[in-house]
Amino acid sequence: MLKAAIITIGDEILIGQVVDTNSSHISRALGTLGIKTERMISIGDDAQTIYDTLDAAIQTYDIVLTTGGLGPTKDDITKEVLRRLSGSDGYKEDQGQLAMVYEILHARGLDVLEINKAQALVPDKCEVIVNKRGTAPIMVFRFGSENGASPQGKGRGTLYTLPGVPHEALAALEDIQNDIRAHYPLDRIQHKTVMTYGIAESALAQRIAGWEDALPDNVHLAYLPNPLTGVRLRLSAYGCDDPVLLEDCLKGLRPLINEYLYAEEDTDLPTVIGTLLKQKGLTMSAAESCTGGTISQLMTSVPGCSEYYLGSVTSYANSVKENVLHVPADIIEQYGAVSSDCVAQMAEGVRRLTGSDVSVATSGIAGPGGGTPDKPVGLVWIGVSTPLGTQTFRHIFKNDRAHNIERFAATALNHLRQEILAL
Amino acid sequence: MLKAAIITIGDEILIGQVVDTNSSHISRALGTLGIKTERMISIGDDAQTIYDTLDAAIQTYDIVLTTGGLGPTKDDITKEVLRRLSGSDGYKEDQGQLAMVYEILHARGLDVLEINKAQALVPDKCEVIVNKRGTAPIMVFRFGSENGASPQGKGRGTLYTLPGVPHEALAALEDIQNDIRAHYPLDRIQHKTVMTYGIAESALAQRIAGWEDALPDNVHLAYLPNPLTGVRLRLSAYGCDDPVLLEDCLKGLRPLINEYLYAEEDTDLPTVIGTLLKQKGLTMSAAESCTGGTISQLMTSVPGCSEYYLGSVTSYANSVKENVLHVPADIIEQYGAVSSDCVAQMAEGVRRLTGSDVSVATSGIAGPGGGTPDKPVGLVWIGVSTPLGTQTFRHIFKNDRAHNIERFAATALNHLRQEILAL
Repeated sequence: MLKAAIITIGDEILIGQVVDTNSSHISRALGTLGIKTERMISIGDDAQTIYDTLDAAIQTYDIVLTTGGLGPTKDDITKEVLRRLSGSDGYKEDQGQLAMVYEILHARGLDVLEINKAQALVPDKCEVIVNKRGTAPIMVFRFGSENGASPQGKGRGTLYTLPGVPHEALAALEDIQNDIRAHYPLDRIQHKTVMTYGIAESALAQRIAGWEDALPDNVHLAYLPNPLTGVRLRLSAYGCDDPVLLEDCLKGLRPLINEYLYAEEDTDLPTVIGTLLKQKGLTMSAAESCTGGTISQLMTSVPGCSEYYLGSVTSYANSVKENVLHVPADIIEQYGAVSSDCVAQMAEGVRRLTGSDVSVATSGIAGPGGGTPDKPVGLVWIGVSTPLGTQTFRHIFKNDRAHNIERFAATALNHLRQEILAL
Repeated sequence: MLKAAIITIGDEILIGQVVDTNSSHISRALGTLGIKTERMISIGDDAQTIYDTLDAAIQTYDIVLTTGGLGPTKDDITKEVLRRLSGSDGYKEDQGQLAMVYEILHARGLDVLEINKAQALVPDKCEVIVNKRGTAPIMVFRFGSENGASPQGKGRGTLYTLPGVPHEALAALEDIQNDIRAHYPLDRIQHKTVMTYGIAESALAQRIAGWEDALPDNVHLAYLPNPLTGVRLRLSAYGCDDPVLLEDCLKGLRPLINEYLYAEEDTDLPTVIGTLLKQKGLTMSAAESCTGGTISQLMTSVPGCSEYYLGSVTSYANSVKENVLHVPADIIEQYGAVSSDCVAQMAEGVRRLTGSDVSVATSGIAGPGGGTPDKPVGLVWIGVSTPLGTQTFRHIFKNDRAHNIERFAATALNHLRQEILAL
């Protein structure tokens, strides 16, 4: 099995101003190729540290990926380290990346400055994968090969430099996966992902323990919990080409988690809801109080959502609940805005207002303040209205504001999904 | 200056299942003491790897903090490594932590099992800081001292073990800061953060290059770009107590970036807008098409926003623009939904509907599809309506859907901020 290290370069991670989310994406991408990430390292913008760390890594690991350290500003010194480390005499201008620098900056209405052009300069002994999202090229150093060998000749790994900007790094990962496939004999590996919502990781683990224990030795199960998508189960079969193996495993799993399972591929609730709505020829809308626009933001993150998503009202103030959604004032007075009656009225109100077939509504207390013994921080009421009627649901979560809002929104989407299934 | 390393132990980080947020909190806590984090490392639950990594770290760094590797099930691996590394003959039971184990489990209505009690066992040669949030003690190994020296006598640093659960790790940080203060003479350090929006990192760097070159040797500048907050500039002064030094640096910076500068502290646009609205006693609303709820979601991420944020309409479908926001159908017919006239009507419509003092509206093409030569993917029109009138603004970005939406929303918030300033 190939072994990898991920090295993040940049003071912003080390001083704690930015959380490193890239490494997690990279190790998952490597994992799908059957490559094991053995170490993640974050270091600062210091030439000697970068040199020593990369030098050690290319001697130890088959694949070394770096992120960061390659912006246009002057505190970026990584490229000169790479020139020395690779034994390159100097720099060459990569025409593909240079064209991309012009294209990107012109599209933004910006002039191409000297420091922008300099981004297309790369050490002699590297290959370039053009970064289609940003100005810093992805450099590939094949230390194990004649051309890319370090002067000491001791490196053996392939080093890829990814940009530090997360969406640029993510977009480049597929190109890097293809490059690895083209240059290394990879173990045969198959994956199957199953999406669940509404059950905690520990409860899920307990529920499927017997099935998990009986999995074949070459099948590995990973739990990947996420507040917005629920617990993703990833089955990986090593050294096996036959799709029947994983399908057989799934046959035992399905009846155990039927009520929580919402997809048998790597996806998310807004995408699944969009597919269901299109299949059934329905439209939807949302009325949000405590989730403050998050449901709408999630639903509209899916390309093509205009086919079924009409819009939403964020009724943060009670005056907006009353005047825009036409929730009767006496309902709010009698039961409060965080109540079954209020979310039912909100859901029906936004359906009438937008003319949608179905709708979802939320009202709750995200915190940190605003809770009472009766209605604590973390309480949410969810309403779903369809041609069959209006249902309401009550949940309590115990997180901080940001995570309560995420859980409220995802739980609302899951209820919406279940009600659409019943249509 | 004291140097630190942060080591995260656990397969869940390495396989990309969990993003490591602890290291960021820890390095910020160390930074406030003037301690520089030079390296962050993530390794798996493998005894030899843990031993080698910790052994190297305590020889190189003054302060080494670990997180993870100490749950009730995997306890044995990390703790036994620590026993060997510290030259401890065996384990001792820490009475303070044992009492806490009983207290925590009883409060949760759980029995205290043998594996729970075993958590209070620690290697002979360590001191314990009681973990008040969880069952795993914080162990302190003073390798530089007689009592805590490793058998090889080569370690020099102090090693602290933090729990892996983020809220437990966070809660323990203050105790660790106090322990460090009590045992080390600390350097003086000061930071100052300046927030800019609307200028790219490279253009900003060029604009302030002369000023940056003239900074005193002990002042360091970092560029921290973020699509939602703009480019954050962080100035750090080492070995200096006098606030006049950084204030003098800022005096030269302000006139160079005046039109982009929106705060002189670490904050974001929704928070700054909220503060402005509260100061001026104003309320706001939003009408979103292409941003799909993102502006509302960002504004409501700020605790206490109900004081000034009334709500929003996501008018994704033209029918909602017409029927809810009362944008005249002939405006959409004549100019299209992505037009100056449409966003002006949307902004005015949502102001009327919610009764807010100011409002912001967006209509654009986030992609991937839907663009035309006249109105390409990445085009956005932004409208801001205030008691002084309604302004519209046009921008083009070139990103993928998710990042276009972020840039649209943040740019709209920045225009809103500027118009509120003029009131």
